[in-house]
Amino acid sequence: IGFAVTIFESREDIRCAKVVKGRSINLALSHRGRQALKHIGIEEKIVSMGIPMHARMIHSLNGKQSPIPYGKKGQVIVFHRCLCLICLITAVAEAYPNTKLNFNHKLLDWSPETGAMTFHGPDGNEKEFHADLIVGCDGAFSATRKQFLRRSRFNYSQTYIPHGYLELTIPPRNGDFAMKPNFLHIWPRHTFMMIALPNLDKTFTCTLFMPFEDFEKITTGNELLGFFQKNFPDSIPLIGVDALMRDFFRLPAQALVWVTCSPYHVLDSCVLMGDAAHAMVPFYGQGMNAGFEDCIVFNEIMDQFNEDFAAVLPEYTRVRAPDDQAMAELAMYNYVEMRSHVNSRYFLFRKFLDNTLHFVMPKTIIPLYTMITFTRTRYRQAVIQWQWQNKCLSLSWCAIEHFMRCLAGCPCR
Amino acid sequence: IGFAVTIFESREDIRCAKVVKGRSINLALSHRGRQALKHIGIEEKIVSMGIPMHARMIHSLNGKQSPIPYGKKGQVIVFHRCLCLICLITAVAEAYPNTKLNFNHKLLDWSPETGAMTFHGPDGNEKEFHADLIVGCDGAFSATRKQFLRRSRFNYSQTYIPHGYLELTIPPRNGDFAMKPNFLHIWPRHTFMMIALPNLDKTFTCTLFMPFEDFEKITTGNELLGFFQKNFPDSIPLIGVDALMRDFFRLPAQALVWVTCSPYHVLDSCVLMGDAAHAMVPFYGQGMNAGFEDCIVFNEIMDQFNEDFAAVLPEYTRVRAPDDQAMAELAMYNYVEMRSHVNSRYFLFRKFLDNTLHFVMPKTIIPLYTMITFTRTRYRQAVIQWQWQNKCLSLSWCAIEHFMRCLAGCPCR
Repeated sequence: IGFAVTIFESREDIRCAKVVKGRSINLALSHRGRQALKHIGIEEKIVSMGIPMHARMIHSLNGKQSPIPYGKKGQVIVFHRCLCLICLITAVAEAYPNTKLNFNHKLLDWSPETGAMTFHGPDGNEKEFHADLIVGCDGAFSATRKQFLRRSRFNYSQTYIPHGYLELTIPPRNGDFAMKPNFLHIWPRHTFMMIALPNLDKTFTCTLFMPFEDFEKITTGNELLGFFQKNFPDSIPLIGVDALMRDFFRLPAQALVWVTCSPYHVLDSCVLMGDAAHAMVPFYGQGMNAGFEDCIVFNEIMDQFNEDFAAVLPEYTRVRAPDDQAMAELAMYNYVEMRSHVNSRYFLFRKFLDNTLHFVMPKTIIPLYTMITFTRTRYRQAVIQWQWQNKCLSLSWCAIEHFMRCLAGCPCR
Repeated sequence: IGFAVTIFESREDIRCAKVVKGRSINLALSHRGRQALKHIGIEEKIVSMGIPMHARMIHSLNGKQSPIPYGKKGQVIVFHRCLCLICLITAVAEAYPNTKLNFNHKLLDWSPETGAMTFHGPDGNEKEFHADLIVGCDGAFSATRKQFLRRSRFNYSQTYIPHGYLELTIPPRNGDFAMKPNFLHIWPRHTFMMIALPNLDKTFTCTLFMPFEDFEKITTGNELLGFFQKNFPDSIPLIGVDALMRDFFRLPAQALVWVTCSPYHVLDSCVLMGDAAHAMVPFYGQGMNAGFEDCIVFNEIMDQFNEDFAAVLPEYTRVRAPDDQAMAELAMYNYVEMRSHVNSRYFLFRKFLDNTLHFVMPKTIIPLYTMITFTRTRYRQAVIQWQWQNKCLSLSWCAIEHFMRCLAGCPCR
C-alpha cells in the first residue's frame, strides 16, 4: 500500500489481441493461489472463470474409467487456460487503477546498483525507467535473471526432463462435453501418459507427455494410429482420426524445464518471483500456486520488516527458497508417480489408507496431496511431515506383521 | 593432423607480460594430464617445470607432522602455478608452428549455424572469424557456453560452495624452503582447512579454505592473529606476523564454483572442453587432468568416426559427460573428506587397509585415489568399482565379525 507500481510486459495486451500467440499448459488454481487472490479481493471473480474439479478420472487400457478424488468433499481445483490471464489483468486493472500497465516492453538490461532498466518499447526505440525495487516475474526464461547470472555466488540450474509434450483437442459432442467434465482425465501408461482437461467452450485439451525419443519414432500417420490404437484406444473416436493426424504433426513436442536458483535477490534493488525464481515441471499443478504464494510470503515479510528492502529481500530468499525447492522436487517425484503408480493397486491402496487415517486422525495424518493442494502448510514442512508419516506407517506395518506372526505361532525373528 | 588451427585467447600473451594479472589455484598434473601431454610430445618438458610430490603432510594442532603417501613409490603428482601456462604455450607454439595464436581477443558472440565468431580485438575493433569447428576451452565462465544457454534442452547448473579461499605466502628461510618441499602440506580443521604448496622460487603458497561467513567474522588484526594462534599456530612464524596481517586483508576471499552441463556440443559446429564443460571444486586435483583427458577422448572418437564432426560431437557428449560428472561429484565428496576425515583414525585405517589389500590383490582392490590419479580408468568406472570394493569390504567385516562371534560361542543372529 502506498507504492507506485508500474508493470512492464513483453507481450501485447491480450485483452485486445485477436489471436493469442504462444501456448500454455492448463493452469491449476488451488488453495495457495486462491489465498493470494483473496488478499487482493479478486478470488471469486477469477474462480468463476474456471472449471472446478473434484477428482481425477483414470482411463485403463480396456476403456474402464475410475475416479480418484483430490481430497474431501468440497475440496476442488479450478482449471483455467490463458483466458485466466485476461481476467487477471482486467481484475487487477480495476482493483488498482493507479497501477500503470505497459505492454510490448521487452527488458534489455538493468542495473543492480542504480535500479535503471532499459526496455525495447513498442515504437522500436529504447526506453529507460527507474525503480526503487524491481520485481522480476518474467517466467522460466526470465530476462531479469540474466543480470543475476553475471554476479558471483549465484546458484542456478536448469534441467530439461526427457519428456516433451504435445497438445490435442477433443471437440464437443452434440453441443456438450464429450467426456465427463469436472474431472482431470488421465491415461497413465508407465513411461508416458496423456491427460485431458475441460475448457469453458466444452472442448477438452489433451496433453500427451512422452520421452522425446518416442515422439521421434512416430513419423507417419499409420505409426501414429497404431500407437493410439495400442495405448489410448478410447480416445481416438473422441479426438477424431482426421484431427489427430492433423494436430499431432502440426508442431514438434515442446520441452519441459525445471529451474532453481538462489538467492532470489540482488542487493536491495531486485527480487525474483514465480517461474523466474523456480520453474517446475507441471505434474503437481503447483506452478502458479507457488508463484502466487510467493506474493503472500513477500507481503508478510514486508510487514514484518517495515518495508525496508535491505532487510526484506535477504529474509525472503532465506524463508522462501527452501519451500520452492521442496515443491519443485515434489513435482519431479509426481512426474514419475502420475504416469506409473496412479493405476497400480498399491497406489490406490495407499490413497485409501491415507484418506482413512486422515478421517480417523484428521490432525495427525494428512495426505501429502491435501497438505500441498488444500492448505498453506509450508512446502518443506509438508514434505518433512509426509516423510514422518511414512515412517510411522512402515513401523505400524511391522508391528501388525509381528503381531500376526505371533498369533500364527511363528518364532520371533 | 591436417587441420588448420587458430587459437583465440582473451588475455594478453603471458610470455611477454611483465605482471601476470589474475590468480590461479595451484595446478596438479597427474597421470591423465601427462598422458595427454605425451600424445603431443611435450610431457617431459612440462613435468620438468613443476615440483613433484609423493605425499601429503598432515599438520596437527600441536604442530606434529605426519606424511600420507599418494600411492606407491614412484607415483607422483607434479604441481605447477600459472608459470606452467607459459611453458605450455611455448611448447605448443614450438611443436605446432602452423597453429596461429591470437591474444587479447575477447569472444563477443558466435553463430551455431554458420560457425562465424565475432571478437573484440586488441585494437578495440570487432573482428569476424569463421571456423568449421569451434572448440570452447574458455573456462568456468565460458563465453562460448552463453550461446548454448540460449538453446532449448541444454541442461546447466552452477553451484557455489559455502567456502571461499584466500592465498598467503611462506617466504624462503635462509635461501631454502621453510618446510619440507615435495609434500602437499595440509592443516585439516574439520569445517575449514589450509594447504601449502611449494613453488620453484622456494616459497610456499598457502591457501586457506573457509566458509565465507567465517571469513566475514575476521575483521581486525587481533581477531586474525587469535584465529591463527588457535588453529594454525605452527604456520605463524613461517608466514610472518606482518605478512599475514598484510596479505590476509589485501583481497576478499574468492568463490569456488562447480559447473555441470550437457550436451557438450551444438549441432556439428561447436564443442566444449575443460572447465567450460565441467568446472569442479579443486579438492581432488583433477580439474586440469580432466580437461586434458577430454582431448584424448575427443581424439579417440575423431579416429573412430573418421573425423566426421556430425558423428563425433554427439558421441563425445555421450561418452565423456558422465565421466566428468562423476569426477566433479568426487571432488565435492573430497571437499568434505579432505578437511575433516584426513586426520581421523578411521581415515588413516581405511588408507592402510586399502593400500594393504591393493598390495595383496593388486588387480582386484585398487584404492579410489590411485584409480583417479594414477590410471586412466574411466572416472565413472572408478566410482562404480570403488562402491563395489566398499561393499565387499563391508561384507568381509560382517563375515569376520560373524566368525568371531561363533568362536566366542554367541548365538547366531
